[in-house]
Amino acid sequence: MTEHKPALRVGMIGYAFMGAAHSQAWRTAPHFFDLPLAPEMAVVCGRNAAGVAEAAARLGWASSSTSWRSVLEDDTIDLVDVCTPGDTHAEIAIAALEAGKHVLCEKPLANSVAEAEAMTAAAEKAAAHGVRAMVGFTYRRVPAIALARKLVADGRLGEVRHVRAQYLQDWLVDADAPLSWRLDKAKAGSGALGDIGAHVVDLTQHILGETIHEVSGQLETFVKERPVAESSSGLSGQAGTERGPVTVDDAAVFLARFGGGALGVFEATRFATGRKNAIRIEVNGSKGSIAFDFEDMNVLHFHDATIDDLEGGFRRIVVTEAGHPWVSAWWPPGHGLGYEHGFTHQVVDLVTALADGTQPEPSFADGLQVQRVLAAVETSSDTRSWQEVPA
Amino acid sequence: MTEHKPALRVGMIGYAFMGAAHSQAWRTAPHFFDLPLAPEMAVVCGRNAAGVAEAAARLGWASSSTSWRSVLEDDTIDLVDVCTPGDTHAEIAIAALEAGKHVLCEKPLANSVAEAEAMTAAAEKAAAHGVRAMVGFTYRRVPAIALARKLVADGRLGEVRHVRAQYLQDWLVDADAPLSWRLDKAKAGSGALGDIGAHVVDLTQHILGETIHEVSGQLETFVKERPVAESSSGLSGQAGTERGPVTVDDAAVFLARFGGGALGVFEATRFATGRKNAIRIEVNGSKGSIAFDFEDMNVLHFHDATIDDLEGGFRRIVVTEAGHPWVSAWWPPGHGLGYEHGFTHQVVDLVTALADGTQPEPSFADGLQVQRVLAAVETSSDTRSWQEVPA
Amino acid sequence: MTEHKPALRVGMIGYAFMGAAHSQAWRTAPHFFDLPLAPEMAVVCGRNAAGVAEAAARLGWASSSTSWRSVLEDDTIDLVDVCTPGDTHAEIAIAALEAGKHVLCEKPLANSVAEAEAMTAAAEKAAAHGVRAMVGFTYRRVPAIALARKLVADGRLGEVRHVRAQYLQDWLVDADAPLSWRLDKAKAGSGALGDIGAHVVDLTQHILGETIHEVSGQLETFVKERPVAESSSGLSGQAGTERGPVTVDDAAVFLARFGGGALGVFEATRFATGRKNAIRIEVNGSKGSIAFDFEDMNVLHFHDATIDDLEGGFRRIVVTEAGHPWVSAWWPPGHGLGYEHGFTHQVVDLVTALADGTQPEPSFADGLQVQRVLAAVETSSDTRSWQEVPA
Amino acid sequence: MTEHKPALRVGMIGYAFMGAAHSQAWRTAPHFFDLPLAPEMAVVCGRNAAGVAEAAARLGWASSSTSWRSVLEDDTIDLVDVCTPGDTHAEIAIAALEAGKHVLCEKPLANSVAEAEAMTAAAEKAAAHGVRAMVGFTYRRVPAIALARKLVADGRLGEVRHVRAQYLQDWLVDADAPLSWRLDKAKAGSGALGDIGAHVVDLTQHILGETIHEVSGQLETFVKERPVAESSSGLSGQAGTERGPVTVDDAAVFLARFGGGALGVFEATRFATGRKNAIRIEVNGSKGSIAFDFEDMNVLHFHDATIDDLEGGFRRIVVTEAGHPWVSAWWPPGHGLGYEHGFTHQVVDLVTALADGTQPEPSFADGLQVQRVLAAVETSSDTRSWQEVPA
Repeated sequence: MTEHKPALRVGMIGYAFMGAAHSQAWRTAPHFFDLPLAPEMAVVCGRNAAGVAEAAARLGWASSSTSWRSVLEDDTIDLVDVCTPGDTHAEIAIAALEAGKHVLCEKPLANSVAEAEAMTAAAEKAAAHGVRAMVGFTYRRVPAIALARKLVADGRLGEVRHVRAQYLQDWLVDADAPLSWRLDKAKAGSGALGDIGAHVVDLTQHILGETIHEVSGQLETFVKERPVAESSSGLSGQAGTERGPVTVDDAAVFLARFGGGALGVFEATRFATGRKNAIRIEVNGSKGSIAFDFEDMNVLHFHDATIDDLEGGFRRIVVTEAGHPWVSAWWPPGHGLGYEHGFTHQVVDLVTALADGTQPEPSFADGLQVQRVLAAVETSSDTRSWQEVPA
Repeated sequence: MTEHKPALRVGMIGYAFMGAAHSQAWRTAPHFFDLPLAPEMAVVCGRNAAGVAEAAARLGWASSSTSWRSVLEDDTIDLVDVCTPGDTHAEIAIAALEAGKHVLCEKPLANSVAEAEAMTAAAEKAAAHGVRAMVGFTYRRVPAIALARKLVADGRLGEVRHVRAQYLQDWLVDADAPLSWRLDKAKAGSGALGDIGAHVVDLTQHILGETIHEVSGQLETFVKERPVAESSSGLSGQAGTERGPVTVDDAAVFLARFGGGALGVFEATRFATGRKNAIRIEVNGSKGSIAFDFEDMNVLHFHDATIDDLEGGFRRIVVTEAGHPWVSAWWPPGHGLGYEHGFTHQVVDLVTALADGTQPEPSFADGLQVQRVLAAVETSSDTRSWQEVPA
Repeated sequence: MTEHKPALRVGMIGYAFMGAAHSQAWRTAPHFFDLPLAPEMAVVCGRNAAGVAEAAARLGWASSSTSWRSVLEDDTIDLVDVCTPGDTHAEIAIAALEAGKHVLCEKPLANSVAEAEAMTAAAEKAAAHGVRAMVGFTYRRVPAIALARKLVADGRLGEVRHVRAQYLQDWLVDADAPLSWRLDKAKAGSGALGDIGAHVVDLTQHILGETIHEVSGQLETFVKERPVAESSSGLSGQAGTERGPVTVDDAAVFLARFGGGALGVFEATRFATGRKNAIRIEVNGSKGSIAFDFEDMNVLHFHDATIDDLEGGFRRIVVTEAGHPWVSAWWPPGHGLGYEHGFTHQVVDLVTALADGTQPEPSFADGLQVQRVLAAVETSSDTRSWQEVPA
Repeated sequence: MTEHKPALRVGMIGYAFMGAAHSQAWRTAPHFFDLPLAPEMAVVCGRNAAGVAEAAARLGWASSSTSWRSVLEDDTIDLVDVCTPGDTHAEIAIAALEAGKHVLCEKPLANSVAEAEAMTAAAEKAAAHGVRAMVGFTYRRVPAIALARKLVADGRLGEVRHVRAQYLQDWLVDADAPLSWRLDKAKAGSGALGDIGAHVVDLTQHILGETIHEVSGQLETFVKERPVAESSSGLSGQAGTERGPVTVDDAAVFLARFGGGALGVFEATRFATGRKNAIRIEVNGSKGSIAFDFEDMNVLHFHDATIDDLEGGFRRIVVTEAGHPWVSAWWPPGHGLGYEHGFTHQVVDLVTALADGTQPEPSFADGLQVQRVLAAVETSSDTRSWQEVPA
């Protein structure tokens, strides 16, 4: 199967939550999809030698390293997969591109627009030499989302009027949940806005095929101080008695105007008690509507307003037919996919683009554009007024 | 609007749960529908003089009586509305028909097939003189049910293969819930089977436009003895220390074969913990399916299998458009109807049929046929084998 | 029943959609609830003599009138029920209060804050003499909403963090839907914002027991011109070839900050294709959450976060138990109520307050406060910045 | 992590749908769970040399073979994973056990009770020597199902009264869908009953911790002849003009009585238009109820009837918390699992049992008992009467 294909040797930087998801994707993709290249999980990289060695064994990487620079210096490595916190994305990704490695970089692209701009410039420079960069907005590759985008692109929704999008989690509701790197602006860059709000910005723009032109938003940190965790290397950790400041937002809400005139209403929060990972998107157009909730990820609701009112209604499409995007590789209808499948599809599309010599999507430029939307929301929150998103 | 119309003077026998629902229907129908006759709520009848007088005032009847025979002897009464327990239906309805009164009789038509046969014979004899009889399977007149029937009649489901129907309640789960007349075979004739199973038998046959030809069933009384209620005149009552036998079924389950070959699976129970009044019907045909749950009564789910699989799915039709049955008389789309609206629609259709000189549906013959299905289920439960339903 | 009670003679001004709903409520309430006063539907008033006479007969009013002033001059009238478009509310209601009549006034209270202030001043003056004024935010009296409010008041949600509220309709999606008085700023005062946005502002404030302190919003008119209807007296009408300007908003979106610190996200639109009357409210607090959708109006979803995570989740409460607000008057559990029941409950509470000599809620002051929120949204839309709501 | 663990060398027989699912499980389990043994995907076996070689490469097996007997003769193989059609299960599994190999055998255990009995006898004999046999009822290992079982076991449902279970698919609705081995009694043994009915029999018994004692059922073949497929090696295939007889049931319905007295209603069909893989199970007990639908597989609905009626209701538990069975190995809350995760959990539990020297569940005896239930349904369908299930 894979034996006569050119290899694609991958080095992954970081091995926490995202590292585990990426590893499963690299490992699984070749077994379900007929990839043009054969990914090899060559090396995983992290700062703690013992930790990264254990991760290599557990996640299935052939070797481990404590120096990402040495990974970049390794001529046998074709692609660098950046799964570290956002404060290191720019440095690693730019260096990797300059070293001639393809880059897959987790979102958000960077912790600042300036960094994202530098990364995008590096990506464009690299592209001239056939070196590619992609940012990991993995939810684009949930089949129901791809179907939503197709329906809009096919004109099935007509002129889009409304977008309402929420990314709701509740893991910070407990005021005694510990500080983690995700609550530290220096490391994470942003809170709910950058971590999860970025996803719904990207997803809605992706579905509409339009960008957001202006925003009016508000950030909020409901719990200002939290117990300092003994270890800050994960989502959770043991809380001590010391408390430290939360320097990112717990929640972000904003209004938006899309290029085509649609009105958007966005919400990203870690305080939506009882909602675990509810990515909810509804789009209303002159001819139809779609609605999605990641808590029921294999389903897309579609209302076709051209059907007679007397029998019209949102239909619950179970997006598991062989003809749906990526689905033919998996199981029969009704045998649903899970969270990690989006990562596998991302690998499939990335590897295919690399073999084809085309730009994988979303590009760093796409990631930068999302970053600019997020920055405009932050500025708007400070100025208490609408803010344009630079084109 | 009602002033120049011929009057339809109504006498109602019984004034408990069903009496309240019927009263609201008689009172409401003329204000929302342009009826050909003007109903007058002339007299309500019950055994307890004080009780029935209070009910007349409360429910809006012009007078009260303690003798149903005197109501029948009253030449000014045009229609008798029978809302008493099942053991009195036959005697009252037959006498009323013989007295030349139209009859609306609550379901189940009677407590035995023999009684139902006698009632049907009386109804047919009366019909020859333009006197009409109708049985009150009110759920037929939920707009979503009427739409379901229309879709089947229009061939939208193709050849029907499967019917699954449940009527789930839970008001007997508590083993200390008191005995009431509904648990007394002498009065109620049957338990869950006759009280609520009758509805799903009628509804599925109504939707399919077919009858059930054979059944295999099982009745069960989970709690054999219950506290004797001080008063047995309602659903509830104060429980004493004495316990008496439950002589009807708590639950009934049965398989069924419809005339057209469809396989039915039925369940009626008062022990479905957490289900309050869940009338659930799903029908699968070669071209489509419908699904309904009375706990969301303004909605019908319809799957049109002629739509491309890639965008097909059950659609949630909110059955509140002006073009839906009976709806134009009420509110704008999305402003749902409630339980009692079915009773109002029943009055509308009954009064219209009376004015037109046509047979209102469902007829006593329809009620008898349902009774025969229920009787076959009982026999099947005793014989532990399939039982044919006499045509 | 009602015969020995003091009468409450009602005169209703206006007889369109709201008039029909109010009529059903006045007629129905005494038959299901033991009211302290006996409402009498004395007179209905409208400008067209034939139309109002027909309405009187159809809706069940004893007489009709073409002069609302004559209704106010009628000493036998105790209460004036104002169901006209918003531009006439102030004049009629103030005059009625000055004439010593209790007033029930449809929402929105008025077309401007100035009018609403005058009305509130009149109401407060009248209250000194025991004359009462109430504004008809009827959705407060959906049992599921009342339960939501109780859960918040009982502290079951803890500290409220998020409110997301939408009122979604789609009756203007068709660009050729005709102009009606509801699209004329002079008559309606406002579009989606005032007509339906007012409801979600009132409902969320009612549920939280808090007011909105500041807002940032955006109004939009997607379709600027529409066919002029031959008759402008209703929601619909025959469209001609002439087109006229839409002078109100089709949609309104806004962010809000509640007094207690919660972040609100609001949306009111007549362009949400496929959503018929979807009033959706979700509230997240530190201890729990509630969620409601009027398209399933007998249900409240409640998440109690004090339950172990391993078995916690939003529970679907079917709000039809005898112990739920107003429900004991109606049907057994699971036998749902419909849209018009809220109007009946409104009559019940109003009549009870009048008999008790207490202030019925919501008061004109409450209506004024909602008006101020709406006005702040409009100003914010113009200034493109946050706007405080005057206390 | 896996390097110092004892190896578990696996040979898999068959490589179609189930082979792909098992391969993914063997490959994935060690990367997410700390297994006591290190599975090695040693050899995959099939009749077609080219096909099985391709499958080995694609599915990740180290080698391929066309002789299952040679796999059994290979001393380095520890476990044989039987993924062939049911007609070969007995021969292969018994031989494997006799050869001292552990066996994982897909369901249904066999095509006849006699075969299943022989297999169970072989399994018991082998167990005496520490050789283990397990049957692959993989849906037991959906976390929501495991939670359901726990709630019943913990007494949270009280005395169980009702079980309603459906396994609904629609892939045969099209009368021109081709014949495949699954429609051939000689190969498949049974149709919907054995293929999918077996799952709901096993699941409900597993959840209740009780067996079914008697049944009354009906089988049906709606479409008696179908186009002969060119190739019969899969679910689908190209249809020719020739038609052949369908020798298995398209649908099966049956009533059941559980050992503890609960009444069951079952349905398994490939003709439920619009239902793709809907495994629906509802259980009602004296203290609570649970409801599950595989089309929303990460959710369990639980009604705790000990909660006050006024705030009780089915709660939607998103079964993705770290404390839920198997979940801590995967993703954060709300990041749902998919169909194949059950297979991975099956591997985890099997490997753990092998290392512990305990009997993995479900055993062949469990598989035999399910087979006896299915056989009783078939007999009941023939005799048109209730049939006891031999203990």
